Amino acid sequence: MDFFFEPNGIAVVGATPEPYTGGKNLLTNIASGYKGPIYPVNPKYEEILGLKCYPRVSEIIGPLDLCIIFVPAKAVPGVMEDCVKKGVQGVIIESGGFAEVGPGGKALQDQCLAIARKGRIRVWGPNCMGLIDTAKPYIFSFVIPQDMREAIRPGHISIVVQSGLLSGGFIITLMSNKTLGLAKVCSIGNKCDVNENEFLEYLLRDPATKAVCLYLESFINGRRFFELAASSDKPIVVLKGGKTAPGAKASFSHTASLAGNYDLIRRILKQARVIEADDFFEMMDIARVLEKDFHIQRSPEGKPRIAILTYSGASGIVTTDHMEKYGLTLAHFTPQTRKQLEQLSPEWMPINNPVDYWPAIEKNGPALAYKQAIAALHDDPGVDGIIVHHYAGHGIWLLDAKEMLSGVTGLRKPILFWLVGPEKIREATQLPLEEEGWPTFHEIHRTVRVMAALFERLR
Amino acid sequence: MDFFFEPNGIAVVGATPEPYTGGKNLLTNIASGYKGPIYPVNPKYEEILGLKCYPRVSEIIGPLDLCIIFVPAKAVPGVMEDCVKKGVQGVIIESGGFAEVGPGGKALQDQCLAIARKGRIRVWGPNCMGLIDTAKPYIFSFVIPQDMREAIRPGHISIVVQSGLLSGGFIITLMSNKTLGLAKVCSIGNKCDVNENEFLEYLLRDPATKAVCLYLESFINGRRFFELAASSDKPIVVLKGGKTAPGAKASFSHTASLAGNYDLIRRILKQARVIEADDFFEMMDIARVLEKDFHIQRSPEGKPRIAILTYSGASGIVTTDHMEKYGLTLAHFTPQTRKQLEQLSPEWMPINNPVDYWPAIEKNGPALAYKQAIAALHDDPGVDGIIVHHYAGHGIWLLDAKEMLSGVTGLRKPILFWLVGPEKIREATQLPLEEEGWPTFHEIHRTVRVMAALFERLR
Repeated sequence: MDFFFEPNGIAVVGATPEPYTGGKNLLTNIASGYKGPIYPVNPKYEEILGLKCYPRVSEIIGPLDLCIIFVPAKAVPGVMEDCVKKGVQGVIIESGGFAEVGPGGKALQDQCLAIARKGRIRVWGPNCMGLIDTAKPYIFSFVIPQDMREAIRPGHISIVVQSGLLSGGFIITLMSNKTLGLAKVCSIGNKCDVNENEFLEYLLRDPATKAVCLYLESFINGRRFFELAASSDKPIVVLKGGKTAPGAKASFSHTASLAGNYDLIRRILKQARVIEADDFFEMMDIARVLEKDFHIQRSPEGKPRIAILTYSGASGIVTTDHMEKYGLTLAHFTPQTRKQLEQLSPEWMPINNPVDYWPAIEKNGPALAYKQAIAALHDDPGVDGIIVHHYAGHGIWLLDAKEMLSGVTGLRKPILFWLVGPEKIREATQLPLEEEGWPTFHEIHRTVRVMAALFERLR
Repeated sequence: MDFFFEPNGIAVVGATPEPYTGGKNLLTNIASGYKGPIYPVNPKYEEILGLKCYPRVSEIIGPLDLCIIFVPAKAVPGVMEDCVKKGVQGVIIESGGFAEVGPGGKALQDQCLAIARKGRIRVWGPNCMGLIDTAKPYIFSFVIPQDMREAIRPGHISIVVQSGLLSGGFIITLMSNKTLGLAKVCSIGNKCDVNENEFLEYLLRDPATKAVCLYLESFINGRRFFELAASSDKPIVVLKGGKTAPGAKASFSHTASLAGNYDLIRRILKQARVIEADDFFEMMDIARVLEKDFHIQRSPEGKPRIAILTYSGASGIVTTDHMEKYGLTLAHFTPQTRKQLEQLSPEWMPINNPVDYWPAIEKNGPALAYKQAIAALHDDPGVDGIIVHHYAGHGIWLLDAKEMLSGVTGLRKPILFWLVGPEKIREATQLPLEEEGWPTFHEIHRTVRVMAALFERLR
């Protein structure tokens, strides 16, 4: 698989200088980060973006591991024959128009695969967006160069998506939010040859990757996937497309996938300690928290025991309702914790969980009140995780994230923040918290879902 | 109730010039919008913020309908006696420390209520944040003035929250997102006297209000609520706090509410055509779309028939999976619609629903492709609603919202957008779409949930 991720020489078949085309985007993106030899291939040009252009792959002179193909589907078999001639190791076929469009496309795809097998070439795709490796950075994809360059943000989560387009827009959105960094993004499309298990295996060994997210419409070999997942130390999060009958039907026209029996798949994933997500951002929110290596202790009561620290009684109640749904329970505090919280609150205010903390904030100011309460809750051996509600506003509400969490000692239990506040100001609290490793969320249900996911891995 | 919403004269008991206090915030907020006479009340000062200050309410000279009280709970009965002496019509008690903190607080609350009844004074609260009326604007609340002033954004949704603090931070967050305007926000706290039914009745008659959201932990008189809701033309969305046993227990310590049997409540709400939400932003997302008066047609097939227009097959599939969960079905297109979509797509691309639209976008550019496809889908009599996935990026991806929807004629069926794209750029597509009355969402599950809510009102 190394020739996909670390190729010595890349040919770009379908490169063009025409503006607003995928072929131009693809070449521009590759040239913006990849330092090895790049060979545009297009019989219409002698040179593109300052690079010597070749009429066909077999005429390229120089080292060439990888060929990235972005020409109409019917022209791809010819290109493949030429790749065999030149002796490349891998191709990424990013064009669509194969098995996903019907029997004609399926025949074309089979033809390409037969040529590849004959020439011992591995095929990534077709109908995909290729690879993004943020650390290098390598962008072997026809995503919009300006958007991607501005957004790119290295991190430790890798993504495998059985999808063409999604990876582009979605990945740009994720990184541009500034709270999530990515390691490698692999858009694998119809996976006619290289499949999700090979990608997963590669990423589980990849030192840059600490957690793997997969959007899959089918499992090529469920047993192998199970073995890989069950023996992995790295967290794996899966969003399965085509869980329902209409969804499964749609996925057949998308990547020609047979979606399978979802109840069975769900049970198997659970057994392999794979966390299941229901939506794209949920998948990423779960992964970005799993990746942080929080100290997850096993509750003797079975259900994880969560403390809620809130400035808003209503939010505490809604959080409690969601916790019940996700199998979390309210922690009972030790007398010591209770005493510490009572000292911060006015005399008339009883201490419960959720900790309704507004009176303490009024009495001590938010900086001191939050710092001391978080420390007390984190120290409590009966607390497995903490959900903190914070209003990120102007003036005294703009807290120093380092200072706010400075009372937390020892192994970090999960402390997840639900932040509200004026959009432009909120970032000034959110980004420092994220930088210090404390995840923030916009919605209560997501905060609770992610907290539950952390403990699902204990099974 | 008019003396709460349109008072002639307001006394502010607990006003103070001390920085970072609720008492200063409250007076600052009232003075920033209310044009009638304002009387700060605090025996320590002769003048606050340039306004003559009174030692007690009964010494105020001039018209005085409403008294807003923000002093420690134990001092409130004395203030109430004084209000009786002066003959005010209503009080808003914003202080906490009453029934929500235990028997002692409950006794204080009962004492205040008895004084009010004797003097024919109506009581709003206690333990609340009062009123925000964005149109005036009136901010009868101790929210942070700078945050609120910057965020305030008039609109047509009114909110009733049985909660103290939430209304502040949450409401600021909502309005600062620039996609949601509010009419009136009523934070009603422990509702010891004026209750949710009176607020609902007032808002259903209020010309500025087109939809009402309520966060409630209990129903004072469920039958009356049912009658009001069932006979209302304005959509009503309810988020119930304390649906679960632990949530109900927490709600007792919050606003001393007895949460009731939730299964029963759910059935009754459904029968009264109240839409139920599970989280705060979900409640608002549902309301802001219900408020837009889309043409909701009844599907002869029972389930609403939705078209999905997507640039990403995977997103179409995940949307389909969520649709199944929420009782929506994929529309079957007429031959005419199919033909129009086929003309836009390359020959090899079959037309299904979800409409996988990337090839058409590549062929025609996003501006033309989206405009024509949206028009064709909207014209199809078998389509009840449309979910559009759009990548809001640079260059050719920055579409003119007006132009994009210019093919939509006749009554507007619901067209909801799922937008991704680089954070800073996305707004340039999102805000014009919202201004043109086309709602946008950040997550697929929410887009689908809201589409389903539109059709729930047909029952």
